[in-house]
Amino acid sequence: MDQRVSEHAEVLVDWSARVEAGDDVVVRVDEGAHDLAVAVAEKLGERGANYLATYVSDEVESAFVRSHDGDFDDDPEFEVAMLENADVVLSLRAKRNTAAKGAVPGEKRAAYKKSRTEIKAQMMDTDWVSTMHPTRAHAQNAGMDYREYEDFVYDAVLRDWESLADEMARMKELLDEGSEVRLVKEDTDLTMSIEDRTAVNSAASVAYDSHNLPSGEVFTAPEDPEGEVYFDVPMTHDGTRIRDVHLTFDDGEVVDWSAETGQQALDDIFATDAGAKRLGELGIGMNRGIDRFTDSILFDEKMGDTVHLAVGRAYSSCLPEGEEGNQSAVHVDMITDVSEDSRMEIDGEAVQRNGRFRWEDGFEE
Amino acid sequence: MDQRVSEHAEVLVDWSARVEAGDDVVVRVDEGAHDLAVAVAEKLGERGANYLATYVSDEVESAFVRSHDGDFDDDPEFEVAMLENADVVLSLRAKRNTAAKGAVPGEKRAAYKKSRTEIKAQMMDTDWVSTMHPTRAHAQNAGMDYREYEDFVYDAVLRDWESLADEMARMKELLDEGSEVRLVKEDTDLTMSIEDRTAVNSAASVAYDSHNLPSGEVFTAPEDPEGEVYFDVPMTHDGTRIRDVHLTFDDGEVVDWSAETGQQALDDIFATDAGAKRLGELGIGMNRGIDRFTDSILFDEKMGDTVHLAVGRAYSSCLPEGEEGNQSAVHVDMITDVSEDSRMEIDGEAVQRNGRFRWEDGFEE
Repeated sequence: MDQRVSEHAEVLVDWSARVEAGDDVVVRVDEGAHDLAVAVAEKLGERGANYLATYVSDEVESAFVRSHDGDFDDDPEFEVAMLENADVVLSLRAKRNTAAKGAVPGEKRAAYKKSRTEIKAQMMDTDWVSTMHPTRAHAQNAGMDYREYEDFVYDAVLRDWESLADEMARMKELLDEGSEVRLVKEDTDLTMSIEDRTAVNSAASVAYDSHNLPSGEVFTAPEDPEGEVYFDVPMTHDGTRIRDVHLTFDDGEVVDWSAETGQQALDDIFATDAGAKRLGELGIGMNRGIDRFTDSILFDEKMGDTVHLAVGRAYSSCLPEGEEGNQSAVHVDMITDVSEDSRMEIDGEAVQRNGRFRWEDGFEE
Repeated sequence: MDQRVSEHAEVLVDWSARVEAGDDVVVRVDEGAHDLAVAVAEKLGERGANYLATYVSDEVESAFVRSHDGDFDDDPEFEVAMLENADVVLSLRAKRNTAAKGAVPGEKRAAYKKSRTEIKAQMMDTDWVSTMHPTRAHAQNAGMDYREYEDFVYDAVLRDWESLADEMARMKELLDEGSEVRLVKEDTDLTMSIEDRTAVNSAASVAYDSHNLPSGEVFTAPEDPEGEVYFDVPMTHDGTRIRDVHLTFDDGEVVDWSAETGQQALDDIFATDAGAKRLGELGIGMNRGIDRFTDSILFDEKMGDTVHLAVGRAYSSCLPEGEEGNQSAVHVDMITDVSEDSRMEIDGEAVQRNGRFRWEDGFEE
């Protein structure tokens, strides 16, 4: 077995999920995740934890949902009981076909999801972590050769997380103390308020309330954007590719927008509700192990030398106690490359220039 | 997908497990059982049941057990809770390597098994059924080509179970009413008492308290054997092949034994304890879909035109209320071919001759 699979398991079990002796750990094994499941089981045995492996298959689920009449039982007790008694849930995502759910009618899919609300809540109530094991299907989705994709995934996952978490803590501190962020690059000069907001240091560990491996971003919930911004990293929204988005904000709302590709999809996003035209998130990608767009938000928004903004719903963890923040049915992340000819300022002082942070070599040049 | 996979799933869900709407069904998916899992999920959806798939992998389990210090937690609550709330457990056995547990030290394996006593009991307390999905590993074990092995498995599984159950009921009635069985063939003339014993109609359905698919045998718990018997179907006991066994019983106990291959293993069996030298089971194989030895007891002992005897422990379901029956740490099945030059009598009347039963064409010839 690739030594990196074992290292991945160790990061997942120790850094991300903080598994301890006696923990009851549900391991959700996707169709293509067998090798990682073996490596994770080995680490769980070493730590003296207990494991129960479940089988997660889009094909199995689709067969069930399609043949069911659609009147699903709400939250079957055996699954709720399993999760109520679990300390940790590790999801090993590894699809063999990313299109496997395509044949399930959307209505039935939604009904099935709704019938599992309590199951989802119980899962979220554990120290859960979701990660990805590279498969040919995911490589195909990323438009990459399989070996090259493996390298990509392990570069993203096998970081020095402790040192990255420290670095992200510095960015969090700047955002927490600051009042206004300004982003400047090609076709971009945007200001937004971050007064009284709390940034999240998403360091791929439950100890940081961060539940994805890889992670590596610091995000907050800005408001009152003014100006224009250009997103040059492509994105896929509900199956549609959107490219080269330009937005203009006035008085806190999007007033003008365009996309080279996917204009209709962009129109639809802004037509969703009033909140869709306001900002929900400002995120700073700090995982330099991720150096290319692969059409997977798990990786894309964490990419080093990028900044992303989301229109729509804000995360409550960034908001002052009792404040609601922006509400919307959508939360759509859009990413811009800041590696060249760019500047991010907080309260008028540059904190990132051409991708370099204030505390890094090369920032002053 | 092979149409027979879907038929297999239907037999399993409807005939064997009697799944009903609202049942909480745990589906235990072995490494190689994906296709059958998809077909089973489809049937469960049709019936309006709920499913939770677990992943059963010798490689995952071995990795866990090997790396653990061996002081396993007893019956982790999350797995007990899942099974306590389950109505049905379907085990889809399909190994990718039948030797995958070989590297685990026997002591640790035993300790792990012991730590799961309550989990096993909870599983046995459901309407559980164990079946097998053909894999190349199982084909290899049977010494067969994969396609040929698929045919073999589906011939065994896709029976007209209702009609076979009726036929087996006739054999059960004969055994229940009889007092003495005599078996006569080459090197064989054995009598044994079945007075007051109740035979089990093992018809591959929880409705018959029969939990394996395929099944197809009627068995009871004989005592006081006298005479000699020859077993010409090979067997594997604890990894050792044993062939051409001759036993001589006197006063209810084995007094003389020999094997062409595996004499030492046979000696070890009879040295286990006093009960190992007495009979625990007489079984009549009635599944004519199984027409060859494949070194898997799930199939071998159900083979049509065979009779098997087990030395060692008797099943309590065959015994009168309050009677203990033969006790032993072992229960070793040995099979003899009765398709030619053979006769089974109950109370002096032939009920099977050269493999034909009394109610079949060809019995009188």
